[in-house]
Amino acid sequence: MCGVIGVFLPGQMDAARLTFLGLYALQHRGQESCGIVTSDGSRLSAYKDMGLVAEIFDDERLARLPGRIGIGHVRYSTTGESSVINAQPLLVRSRYGLVALAHNGNLVNARSLSAELQASGAIFQTTTDTEIILTLIGRADAPNLEQAVVSVCRELKGAFALTIMTADRLIGIRDPLGIRPLVLGKLADGFVLASESCALSTMGAEFVRDVLPGEMLVIGPDGLNSYYYGGHGAESLCIFEYVYFARPDSILSGRSVYQTRLAIGAQLAREYQITADLVVPAPDSGVVAALGFAKESGIPFDLGLIKNRYVGRTFIQPAQSMRDLGVKIKLNPVGPVLAGKKVILIDDSVVRGTTSAKTVRLLREAGAAEVHLVVASPPYIRPCYYGIDTSSTEQLIAANNSLAAVQEKIGADSLSYLSLEGLHKAVGSGANRMCRACFTGEYLVPIQ
Amino acid sequence: MCGVIGVFLPGQMDAARLTFLGLYALQHRGQESCGIVTSDGSRLSAYKDMGLVAEIFDDERLARLPGRIGIGHVRYSTTGESSVINAQPLLVRSRYGLVALAHNGNLVNARSLSAELQASGAIFQTTTDTEIILTLIGRADAPNLEQAVVSVCRELKGAFALTIMTADRLIGIRDPLGIRPLVLGKLADGFVLASESCALSTMGAEFVRDVLPGEMLVIGPDGLNSYYYGGHGAESLCIFEYVYFARPDSILSGRSVYQTRLAIGAQLAREYQITADLVVPAPDSGVVAALGFAKESGIPFDLGLIKNRYVGRTFIQPAQSMRDLGVKIKLNPVGPVLAGKKVILIDDSVVRGTTSAKTVRLLREAGAAEVHLVVASPPYIRPCYYGIDTSSTEQLIAANNSLAAVQEKIGADSLSYLSLEGLHKAVGSGANRMCRACFTGEYLVPIQ
Amino acid sequence: MCGVIGVFLPGQMDAARLTFLGLYALQHRGQESCGIVTSDGSRLSAYKDMGLVAEIFDDERLARLPGRIGIGHVRYSTTGESSVINAQPLLVRSRYGLVALAHNGNLVNARSLSAELQASGAIFQTTTDTEIILTLIGRADAPNLEQAVVSVCRELKGAFALTIMTADRLIGIRDPLGIRPLVLGKLADGFVLASESCALSTMGAEFVRDVLPGEMLVIGPDGLNSYYYGGHGAESLCIFEYVYFARPDSILSGRSVYQTRLAIGAQLAREYQITADLVVPAPDSGVVAALGFAKESGIPFDLGLIKNRYVGRTFIQPAQSMRDLGVKIKLNPVGPVLAGKKVILIDDSVVRGTTSAKTVRLLREAGAAEVHLVVASPPYIRPCYYGIDTSSTEQLIAANNSLAAVQEKIGADSLSYLSLEGLHKAVGSGANRMCRACFTGEYLVPIQ
Amino acid sequence: MCGVIGVFLPGQMDAARLTFLGLYALQHRGQESCGIVTSDGSRLSAYKDMGLVAEIFDDERLARLPGRIGIGHVRYSTTGESSVINAQPLLVRSRYGLVALAHNGNLVNARSLSAELQASGAIFQTTTDTEIILTLIGRADAPNLEQAVVSVCRELKGAFALTIMTADRLIGIRDPLGIRPLVLGKLADGFVLASESCALSTMGAEFVRDVLPGEMLVIGPDGLNSYYYGGHGAESLCIFEYVYFARPDSILSGRSVYQTRLAIGAQLAREYQITADLVVPAPDSGVVAALGFAKESGIPFDLGLIKNRYVGRTFIQPAQSMRDLGVKIKLNPVGPVLAGKKVILIDDSVVRGTTSAKTVRLLREAGAAEVHLVVASPPYIRPCYYGIDTSSTEQLIAANNSLAAVQEKIGADSLSYLSLEGLHKAVGSGANRMCRACFTGEYLVPIQ
Repeated sequence: MCGVIGVFLPGQMDAARLTFLGLYALQHRGQESCGIVTSDGSRLSAYKDMGLVAEIFDDERLARLPGRIGIGHVRYSTTGESSVINAQPLLVRSRYGLVALAHNGNLVNARSLSAELQASGAIFQTTTDTEIILTLIGRADAPNLEQAVVSVCRELKGAFALTIMTADRLIGIRDPLGIRPLVLGKLADGFVLASESCALSTMGAEFVRDVLPGEMLVIGPDGLNSYYYGGHGAESLCIFEYVYFARPDSILSGRSVYQTRLAIGAQLAREYQITADLVVPAPDSGVVAALGFAKESGIPFDLGLIKNRYVGRTFIQPAQSMRDLGVKIKLNPVGPVLAGKKVILIDDSVVRGTTSAKTVRLLREAGAAEVHLVVASPPYIRPCYYGIDTSSTEQLIAANNSLAAVQEKIGADSLSYLSLEGLHKAVGSGANRMCRACFTGEYLVPIQ
Repeated sequence: MCGVIGVFLPGQMDAARLTFLGLYALQHRGQESCGIVTSDGSRLSAYKDMGLVAEIFDDERLARLPGRIGIGHVRYSTTGESSVINAQPLLVRSRYGLVALAHNGNLVNARSLSAELQASGAIFQTTTDTEIILTLIGRADAPNLEQAVVSVCRELKGAFALTIMTADRLIGIRDPLGIRPLVLGKLADGFVLASESCALSTMGAEFVRDVLPGEMLVIGPDGLNSYYYGGHGAESLCIFEYVYFARPDSILSGRSVYQTRLAIGAQLAREYQITADLVVPAPDSGVVAALGFAKESGIPFDLGLIKNRYVGRTFIQPAQSMRDLGVKIKLNPVGPVLAGKKVILIDDSVVRGTTSAKTVRLLREAGAAEVHLVVASPPYIRPCYYGIDTSSTEQLIAANNSLAAVQEKIGADSLSYLSLEGLHKAVGSGANRMCRACFTGEYLVPIQ
Repeated sequence: MCGVIGVFLPGQMDAARLTFLGLYALQHRGQESCGIVTSDGSRLSAYKDMGLVAEIFDDERLARLPGRIGIGHVRYSTTGESSVINAQPLLVRSRYGLVALAHNGNLVNARSLSAELQASGAIFQTTTDTEIILTLIGRADAPNLEQAVVSVCRELKGAFALTIMTADRLIGIRDPLGIRPLVLGKLADGFVLASESCALSTMGAEFVRDVLPGEMLVIGPDGLNSYYYGGHGAESLCIFEYVYFARPDSILSGRSVYQTRLAIGAQLAREYQITADLVVPAPDSGVVAALGFAKESGIPFDLGLIKNRYVGRTFIQPAQSMRDLGVKIKLNPVGPVLAGKKVILIDDSVVRGTTSAKTVRLLREAGAAEVHLVVASPPYIRPCYYGIDTSSTEQLIAANNSLAAVQEKIGADSLSYLSLEGLHKAVGSGANRMCRACFTGEYLVPIQ
Repeated sequence: MCGVIGVFLPGQMDAARLTFLGLYALQHRGQESCGIVTSDGSRLSAYKDMGLVAEIFDDERLARLPGRIGIGHVRYSTTGESSVINAQPLLVRSRYGLVALAHNGNLVNARSLSAELQASGAIFQTTTDTEIILTLIGRADAPNLEQAVVSVCRELKGAFALTIMTADRLIGIRDPLGIRPLVLGKLADGFVLASESCALSTMGAEFVRDVLPGEMLVIGPDGLNSYYYGGHGAESLCIFEYVYFARPDSILSGRSVYQTRLAIGAQLAREYQITADLVVPAPDSGVVAALGFAKESGIPFDLGLIKNRYVGRTFIQPAQSMRDLGVKIKLNPVGPVLAGKKVILIDDSVVRGTTSAKTVRLLREAGAAEVHLVVASPPYIRPCYYGIDTSSTEQLIAANNSLAAVQEKIGADSLSYLSLEGLHKAVGSGANRMCRACFTGEYLVPIQ
């Protein structure tokens, strides 16, 4: 999971600041590193570092990124090591001149592509897919960059939403299945691209539409032009964007994430009639689904768990002696709300199960009489190879245990997952064409 | 508003780490600076800096703070300039040996005390009340530190909750009215003091009781001892702690902050019958009251505003050209939830009115048909001199405008404040003895 | 050893930058911490930190120190711990208003003064003599600051050269014996004070004269005024300033440090006729004396040891395995110059002997046939209590060993110290009234 | 000008620390950026940043660079921009596995090579020659890395001394003319490579020999092997290494830099009989030649100029108002030594003339009666394309002005350059085969 931004401001000269705001709104998509590249029409300037957008960029830094075109990236390490060398965007000199590229998604054949390219002479300084894409672009025998990008994207296997920049133009492109999102926004005098529509709101841009699967947008001196290079119109957006990734105020493929999560909660309430006193969300990702559940079931909703908002990235771990004391760093229970109550705990998903087990234990220690875990998605049984870091099948609790065994490991009084059909209903038309490989094992792009 | 911590761990040697965790749980009480002082039995070690607890302290820093006793402080600048010189705790050498002190609250006669002390020979390196208290302690002619502290605290005018430390003991003391909170917790093998009970949970400590108004606790080699030096038993805790300051999972004077806020919301729903489609909280401080309102009124609750969790302290301000674009940094509306709806917006309080006006405008721009602002406290008409930075009466919108004028400035379709009686009802018995000067102008400690 | 600066620029407004340049020129007198305080006529601004002047201050920092009056300090820890709390100048509010003070020197009765002051109510936040002086000033019952300073300085025991600043005036004052140096310089439109005249050259100021022992200079709206508060005219400048502390381009008490060191070297050549091929200085402090020795003796001078100019303050120490490899961090020998030669090594002084032993071994390993150590000062046999950190008599090699034993420990083929009479001759008239306690044990201010 | 290090320690595991020490000794060859790559046998670890070696690396950083093989680099920007992206060594994945490379020198056909490579598909992330060399290696169709390196080095035009590293071996290679230096050292159990022999002393290694022009050394599991891939035995080391670059304690091609500079000074004294009172060096680069001049001429030598040792990299520039005051940042004159004297100022070279003019003025202001500038090298009339940043011919004062005009611009009473024959004599046999293009315009590698 990563986030990308693109900005084209013909009449103005502060692309860096607007790119910064866009990245800031996408911070939830990646907190490891961030970067911005801008162009003043001829010279490209770049800055990248490990850390949060608001930590890395200040007025002084932005002032050293002059220009009217910009792209940006926030990174959540999916492939490649955690190191500044892997921060994006990458900026290279090539036969097509200076090119910068920011990538959200994962190639499924990165390893073999890299090996082939090395065998035919390429060298790699990073461990990112992004460098592979740029290497292919550099080698593409095309009359111009746009055609080089198209010919490369036709060959890539996997998920990608890219913002690409040269000295005088901005390109946005999405993979033929549209697994990763990308939206187009409009300013009075310019255009912006962003992984999610919530960034348009922050940037003061008006939502225009999603970039379509297999579409390339080119924004340059001669305006905005659209090209289709692949795909068949059917969109296969990652359904997990609705479950967890996207910010609730985003609209993806015409669906409000907030309302989709409300619908998921309501669907859960219809699927499971649990006798309980209270619906409590796991903060923050379970909140909207829990609200939907409470509304549909009529069971009162309360914020029984308070999340500390100041958790830093490199938070000091308590020593074992302190763990034995029962210190609680991230989540604290609201005792008087929970004591003696039968609690329905709503979480967005259960991947490895360790966090859920901790949360259930926390509720019990605070006095909950019963804890029923209700999960706002189906069992997560297969790794994602298109942009999420869920390592291997062995680590997925639902892939290796029966429902009863998962419930026992987590320590809940009951465990209820959303049905796949329920998820389809909540997401609405087209949901059955979306990428749901993590729940079904049906990989739309074959894994190599 | 500030937060203080005290830790006494006779059998262990990592007071710094536990103090750190306590401060981390109190971070909402002050984000400007923080500091920790520890004792290994003879030597005291200190570290203070500007910034968040999780930014300032890491394993290396904590390792340089050895010892089994510790006090800590998070500061939200109330008096004194924003500078590291004013960070707390202060550590001094005095006739009573090494003494460190952390202070939450404000003295009302700080200026005259400082002038008198200077006239009689004292010098001051900071602009904090804390240095005044330590100067008085140094000059107190008493047989020991405890009696010096008592004699000084009898003379202080204002609000104070202090943690004080020497090489071998920890002291907690609260002003005779108990305006600022302080609680006592117990570990298997030790004691902790904290401004709020939520820190006890994070530190793995069991809640024992509030330190009482006019009480001094001394924790040392001969255990825990309690002394009363003033006050008449009646507690006058700041009622604004329930409205805004305290974390919802804290319990102050036996009342759950979360449940008090629910009751405030319910009381509001009883006081005002507004025809509306939706109750929306101003994040995060209005959330629990809004839930209470929705429960009582039956009007649906939704999170119509999403707060960006990554706002840094020194966030870059957008240029005017960007403000004109309508960029939204901290709050983003959830359009599909709000469009065409009559919305009740619940906020905890309205002080200057500027934030409320922005929020109302945001909801309107997102399509809300009506916006009714309901405030979870009475009109804020007088400055606080006991620890909150609300400058002067001129800046308080309700002190200088009629209800209708405030409503117009804020741009709401209606404006409803909680009645003082309603606040009393929601807070419960004793509320009418609490400090409510900001709502009534009745200052319990005369202002000098 | 520390350095102080004072700047008074009536018609200009950048005292910070000129103070910075002055401190930069005095960096050799202290590398631990540094600080600047300025006044814009009413408000005083301060910044202090651990580290070198050129590391701590940049354009941004200096811009936050507005004003036309400034004082500064570079600190080499003599008393007090290595901590930013002990960085100078100290800035306090007192009965005389805002006062900032920078101190070079040591009080001999600091401990008893501090204890007495604590007993009568004072508290101390630092472990510096500076805070003691300011505490005494605050308590002095005088009609104004100048008279308070005078009355305090009359009572102080020890060495001090102070720059003091208020909102509108600058004070320079030297102890009655003049143990630590302080000079006055003139700008077209203003005055400067500095520990050494080399700083005047860097600041573009013209040398006027030394501040005299027992003299206080007050520079304010009504110009420059001089007052004598003590002393009898006889100056007892620390003779070690000529041997080691001062920069060679400084002139102290009318004597050029460079020429004094040349004279010391020549005197050594007259005192000892050593048959040798080469005179080699220990860099950098032995260079000028070595030149003087070579000129007088006719023995060729060569730079047989090269010093690495990039040694940082917190240089990584090599592991023991590397020490065994014989790694050489600070000094490297010039093999072809040394091989087979009888070498006279000139060093400024021998305090503990460890550095000398290493240097002698380095020369031998590089092939020197003989190494004769000639020391440009008499045996260092007593600690300095007036501003130099030479701990205790036990650590002084010459205080505890015969000449032969020192020579053996150091591993030299011969060892020759400058005679006390020789030092007097080289320094010239008045040398016998100077402070030479480290060589003679005759302390001019009794140690308490 | 840059510096490179290589370390191979079969039995040990702290290559990073030894590489650090080697770089530290080469710091004079480049202060802009530095970097280290190490191998633990399979995994390579890298760290690079802007700044001095002792600032960038500390114990924590070195601990994250495990392994027994290491290469390092200090950079003085010659080609490429000042940015961390251009810091070396570069580490890439290629058909030959992981390869890291550090480069001292410049290719003369970098621009055309880069363009050709881009045209055939390569992309470039940096603006360094180093990336070009690695790109060529990646594309070389060879059975192994060593042969790929050889085939590439045969085609490179320009100067290069490289240290190259894989998971299990270290390679050192020098261009066929040997323009840039590289030496081999031996440890009890391992080998080191360094740009200059002074680093061997710091690393505790024994000097073995220079790597020869056109020689590749491969140090791996099967020991040290030497291969010749080009050149004809004649070495054409850059003669400016003796004049200025190298540290005086280094030995290059069997000649001591210190003794060569002494010989240069003596030769100057034979070439010019100037009537003067004093020989004064421009610190630090003119010191040894000045000593040689003084010894031969019999004119007394004195350090008439003192250099501030604490000049930081980003030193604050004085405002114009201060320049008008005559502030002196880097150099301060020793007035009493200079006053009324006829001074011979010895500097290593005159490139643009601005520094010399300032130094002459400084001496005059300090009272020198006459200033005769004697330059320890011939007129510098052509740019270097092999590794030194002397921009363009227009900026070289001697290329565009007569001797008399240069003298006048510099403001000296006389100006004397070393003759080319004199330089040959001082350097000794083979000097006439060395690269002296900057003095003669005879470029040994044609410029493209």
